[in-house]
Amino acid sequence: MRRTVFDDDHEAFRSVLRDFIAAEVAPVHQEWETAGRVPREFYRKLGELGIFGFGVPEEFGGAGETGFKFNAVISEECARAGVTFGGAGAHMALPATFVKYTTEEQKKRWLPAFVTGELMTAIAITEPGAGSDVAGIRTAAVLSEDGTHYVLNGVKSFVSGGAQADLVLVACRTSGEGQDDRRGGMSLLAVEARAEGVAITAEPVTLGLRSSDIVEMTFTDVRVPVTDVVGGLGNAFTCLADIFPQERLGIAVGAYAHAAAAVRFATEYVRERTVFGKPVAAFQNTKFVLADCKAEVDALQAVADRALEAFDAGELSADEAASAKLYCGDTAARVIDKCLQLHGGYGFMMEYPIARLYADNRASRIFGGTSEIMRSIVAKSMGL
Amino acid sequence: MRRTVFDDDHEAFRSVLRDFIAAEVAPVHQEWETAGRVPREFYRKLGELGIFGFGVPEEFGGAGETGFKFNAVISEECARAGVTFGGAGAHMALPATFVKYTTEEQKKRWLPAFVTGELMTAIAITEPGAGSDVAGIRTAAVLSEDGTHYVLNGVKSFVSGGAQADLVLVACRTSGEGQDDRRGGMSLLAVEARAEGVAITAEPVTLGLRSSDIVEMTFTDVRVPVTDVVGGLGNAFTCLADIFPQERLGIAVGAYAHAAAAVRFATEYVRERTVFGKPVAAFQNTKFVLADCKAEVDALQAVADRALEAFDAGELSADEAASAKLYCGDTAARVIDKCLQLHGGYGFMMEYPIARLYADNRASRIFGGTSEIMRSIVAKSMGL
Amino acid sequence: MRRTVFDDDHEAFRSVLRDFIAAEVAPVHQEWETAGRVPREFYRKLGELGIFGFGVPEEFGGAGETGFKFNAVISEECARAGVTFGGAGAHMALPATFVKYTTEEQKKRWLPAFVTGELMTAIAITEPGAGSDVAGIRTAAVLSEDGTHYVLNGVKSFVSGGAQADLVLVACRTSGEGQDDRRGGMSLLAVEARAEGVAITAEPVTLGLRSSDIVEMTFTDVRVPVTDVVGGLGNAFTCLADIFPQERLGIAVGAYAHAAAAVRFATEYVRERTVFGKPVAAFQNTKFVLADCKAEVDALQAVADRALEAFDAGELSADEAASAKLYCGDTAARVIDKCLQLHGGYGFMMEYPIARLYADNRASRIFGGTSEIMRSIVAKSMGL
Amino acid sequence: MRRTVFDDDHEAFRSVLRDFIAAEVAPVHQEWETAGRVPREFYRKLGELGIFGFGVPEEFGGAGETGFKFNAVISEECARAGVTFGGAGAHMALPATFVKYTTEEQKKRWLPAFVTGELMTAIAITEPGAGSDVAGIRTAAVLSEDGTHYVLNGVKSFVSGGAQADLVLVACRTSGEGQDDRRGGMSLLAVEARAEGVAITAEPVTLGLRSSDIVEMTFTDVRVPVTDVVGGLGNAFTCLADIFPQERLGIAVGAYAHAAAAVRFATEYVRERTVFGKPVAAFQNTKFVLADCKAEVDALQAVADRALEAFDAGELSADEAASAKLYCGDTAARVIDKCLQLHGGYGFMMEYPIARLYADNRASRIFGGTSEIMRSIVAKSMGL
Repeated sequence: MRRTVFDDDHEAFRSVLRDFIAAEVAPVHQEWETAGRVPREFYRKLGELGIFGFGVPEEFGGAGETGFKFNAVISEECARAGVTFGGAGAHMALPATFVKYTTEEQKKRWLPAFVTGELMTAIAITEPGAGSDVAGIRTAAVLSEDGTHYVLNGVKSFVSGGAQADLVLVACRTSGEGQDDRRGGMSLLAVEARAEGVAITAEPVTLGLRSSDIVEMTFTDVRVPVTDVVGGLGNAFTCLADIFPQERLGIAVGAYAHAAAAVRFATEYVRERTVFGKPVAAFQNTKFVLADCKAEVDALQAVADRALEAFDAGELSADEAASAKLYCGDTAARVIDKCLQLHGGYGFMMEYPIARLYADNRASRIFGGTSEIMRSIVAKSMGL
Repeated sequence: MRRTVFDDDHEAFRSVLRDFIAAEVAPVHQEWETAGRVPREFYRKLGELGIFGFGVPEEFGGAGETGFKFNAVISEECARAGVTFGGAGAHMALPATFVKYTTEEQKKRWLPAFVTGELMTAIAITEPGAGSDVAGIRTAAVLSEDGTHYVLNGVKSFVSGGAQADLVLVACRTSGEGQDDRRGGMSLLAVEARAEGVAITAEPVTLGLRSSDIVEMTFTDVRVPVTDVVGGLGNAFTCLADIFPQERLGIAVGAYAHAAAAVRFATEYVRERTVFGKPVAAFQNTKFVLADCKAEVDALQAVADRALEAFDAGELSADEAASAKLYCGDTAARVIDKCLQLHGGYGFMMEYPIARLYADNRASRIFGGTSEIMRSIVAKSMGL
Repeated sequence: MRRTVFDDDHEAFRSVLRDFIAAEVAPVHQEWETAGRVPREFYRKLGELGIFGFGVPEEFGGAGETGFKFNAVISEECARAGVTFGGAGAHMALPATFVKYTTEEQKKRWLPAFVTGELMTAIAITEPGAGSDVAGIRTAAVLSEDGTHYVLNGVKSFVSGGAQADLVLVACRTSGEGQDDRRGGMSLLAVEARAEGVAITAEPVTLGLRSSDIVEMTFTDVRVPVTDVVGGLGNAFTCLADIFPQERLGIAVGAYAHAAAAVRFATEYVRERTVFGKPVAAFQNTKFVLADCKAEVDALQAVADRALEAFDAGELSADEAASAKLYCGDTAARVIDKCLQLHGGYGFMMEYPIARLYADNRASRIFGGTSEIMRSIVAKSMGL
Repeated sequence: MRRTVFDDDHEAFRSVLRDFIAAEVAPVHQEWETAGRVPREFYRKLGELGIFGFGVPEEFGGAGETGFKFNAVISEECARAGVTFGGAGAHMALPATFVKYTTEEQKKRWLPAFVTGELMTAIAITEPGAGSDVAGIRTAAVLSEDGTHYVLNGVKSFVSGGAQADLVLVACRTSGEGQDDRRGGMSLLAVEARAEGVAITAEPVTLGLRSSDIVEMTFTDVRVPVTDVVGGLGNAFTCLADIFPQERLGIAVGAYAHAAAAVRFATEYVRERTVFGKPVAAFQNTKFVLADCKAEVDALQAVADRALEAFDAGELSADEAASAKLYCGDTAARVIDKCLQLHGGYGFMMEYPIARLYADNRASRIFGGTSEIMRSIVAKSMGL
């Protein structure tokens, strides 16, 4: 059964990327994990590799129309090597949004540096008191009297890549009225991270994704030019309705990639490792556990590939993306847990990639909307 | 996300079949279940519908080359109505084998009546002492002194459609020598069910699939003409190696169909049923449980459809079929159990299709090779 | 680790009961299952054995104060033999209620025949439109003008032992007023099954517990003497609040007994059964699966025994009983499913007790209040 | 249902311990996690608290005969506060071994400082190439020519508290002969950590238990006086057969404590946290998930308490301890995962104790013998 989702261009990119990871990431990844972030110059290297230009028109330095499959290749290759690209995750996911929702002027101003990695971006939605409830956001931007800028105040939690970002898309209220309309008056502002009043107010240690630079950002009377509204005033929900399915597809694909990598690591481990005088692989339990995992990975791949095809064809609905994320998150967790178990004590050591996959992948059921939110979306699509 | 696996011909057939089931099966299915089998004349109706001719060349009355997707439509429509076609399951699955492995003379003799349902077939592999271990078969056929026929002796268990079959494919040893070669000297004989020495020696009551006419057959000095060897002498393993992936695909697809139907039944039930003053559907637990089930059904569909496409393209390997059966069997069981639970006390009543699905589907992890056999096959394909 | 829950009296009873089951039940149990009920005279034999007298004062022919542990022994021994006592389940569970809530006059009238099995009882709570929502009951009894009797109308579903019962405790509304008080005005009436207007209106085929005589009863203008109110007018909830914890304890203990029996059946089966040239028991997967099951059965026993001790000490709260039922139902289902799987094709044959356990035990998560109701009760006890 | 396993002495100790943890551990625990170990002087404080003296005769400064229940209290209180005592785990578990297997001379030499925490101990069994296969140990001690000491060589992995220990019990081969007897000629040597040739050769970062000081120790020509053999020459298996059940009981009890604490943390969190305008606790899904967790925690408690009672009565067999560890490890993992999920994004933040419990508890199924080893032990006890 051939896998048909990738073409030669994807495979050529995969090959380059695999070499890049082996040379530039694998040897230093543990240092990044300890430091809590990747070195800033690494993002420039990713830019040179062209990773930030998928979906960006060539006139702005990008690769043109590409679809989401290159992102899937990145997920697979990172998982395969047991590494991440740190806080670049959001930035890699944002080109589509930037291209679709920015004005011509904004494109010219931001995209070239976006593609090279000189201008790193992040997105700030979740708040300490709102969680997955986007409509509960309290961060608010008030138009200045002269109408030239907004004054932004609020706190955002869990901003991936936040400390190293140059430009942060902040979801906020731009209208004081209509507050009983929970969705009304929400906009996305592009906030310069070096602007006055922007502060990193917490750098929590996370269970996994340790180099992802996940921080809390506080905005205190930050002045944001009116020209930096993204997607039009009051249109945050429209933009997010576009961003979320892609983000969820990305997490679903990532969960598949994690699970596939876990099976690969475990298979290698049990072949090499000897216990009671024979390879761990020689025990029937090992074979059966890995066979179960393989069958689940086959299913994950079927789900991920089908969603990828649908997404690139413009046919992946929000509830289908939610279903894929829900399914892949749960299933990958089960697979990775079993593969870790087959590693015995080494599964508890972070130098083994299976331990990192275990910790990293726990986020799959939380970030990008929790499984509970996914269930709500799927149920609604069923008429429930 | 459109489902692309079926074309207009499949959908036209589906429509006819759905009407047929509503008119001919649903009203009498419970009677069949109580009787333990379907009326013999029902098979003629299935023949008229063309169901036994998929894959059979037109010169023998069949529909010509068709692939396995029509079978998938049958699975889906039966599950959707909460019914089965009783013991016709094996017969519906056997055209490919009959077409591929019979001689021209056999084709002429058997296929026309096979297609009309006048000649019903079954397949007898498992033995009381051998289970899924095909190589452990003891039923043996000894060539008569004049070389015109075999004398067959042995017992076969779990023969679906056995009591109503006219012709039974029996896997047996045809060579007394080479017994240390566990696979050597095994052949398929086509045994006439009305031949002397053929007896139904047990008609066990089964947990589910009650109208499937699953019996134990005993063969005592049965004379089988040498012209009734199917697939060539000593070639049973080759034939079975062909039959098994298709049978497993069929069970995988059936498990998906069961799960999809279960979600449909449960969704209808919770909408109509009121408890504590509101529809069961209005409770968050109901929504979340059904959303989880829906996400699993989406995954089952992705797996089943991908396997169907690969099978029709001649690309579904034995281990991929095993992986699909293993996955679909486990997952459908989980889904159906949850959907039954949502029915409360009615889930325990056999008049509700969910209860029948629950009982019927338990076979998915056992028949056609147990999940344990599937795991062995998948593990071997992983090099374990 | 000795099991301390049973004393010598319990063990002596167990020994007698085991012999009784082997002689009187096991040989004919399959016939009962086919017939859908046990022969009426069997109940007399149970009466002779003293089974209906646990908890009944000696002056009425009972065994005096005994606690619930004898019931646990019955559960264990029935499960061990793969049988049930058909529709006697409710009757066996009701002595406590009858003793506690009946008047002296009622005791004299009913208990002696209750103990011998001449007067069989059942309890009718659930209604077609109410499910586990007791407060939604619509069956209503209206006092006659002369005040001598009630006129009862309504339909009750899922009455275990209903067709063979002589006296049925019916939960119904006895007050037309206060209908906004969903719990008010509910009483238990003891209705003679042979009274005019009592009809068995449905005898559904059930997934399991086939000999349990589970029927739908319809009451049409049934005259019930006012002297046959049980527990006092308007006190149904108080009585049921007493009955439910015991019923749930009984189901929890039964689920444990089912799981323990399943492990025993599977262990025997895998020792005797040979596949691929060695006993199924010799495969590591078999050992590991059964070890997992054993660990869960050990846990089930710990839970069941602790609850039994607490119940007999008068310390088992309603939420603790709910927790035990919820836990035991889920866990036993998991165990029994695995043990069935180890039986291969025979697990699908009802002549094997594992198949019956599988079908019977599905009721554990539904009857006596569904798992959803149990979760509601437990959550409330947590302050949620 | 009262919990009967603890008496007033245990509860008094619990109260003192809770205050101690609140004052001395909770405020600094995150620092310990970052440092990878607790400060050495903390062990002295634990000594003052009397924690190392349970089971140690009073003449050596201990509390006399006490049983294992005080250890259970420690597990519960640490879990309740979301902390650990770092590398002291092994030391707290070893009194019984030291008291039972040391000579009078050794007792005098070691126990007083053992009790105060001045002499910290660890135990080194697992080796890089042996895992849970104790009989595969290669570390070997050869008797010097003058018979006064052993010369020890080998590598031990996963030594909890290794870098801070003063005395390490090392399981090693003391006999070059009888090598085909995989269990023969194994002894325990008490090796001074400051002796020449003892080196910490790896300090791996672990998934959880970050302050537990889990290291790899290498022994190169270390001279160990013959007077420092513990338990008699060639008796390592006898000692370990004593140590293992207690260690496994400890892990089972710890897993219960983790799960109970997880439910407590989640219950608090969902009560305080608001989403979509109401407390998370107000959603039915939250209630049902926590109710399921509570039912499992009730079962875990029943298992843990029963095992504790049996252990103190000298009746807990090796397979019963294995069954308890197997069950509790699996069940606690399930519970903790669900409780983390209820925390949303905060569940991924290590400052929330649920995240630490999740990471820490993953060791429960690995350390002290993996679940696979437990299954082997349980299966053997079943005659499989």
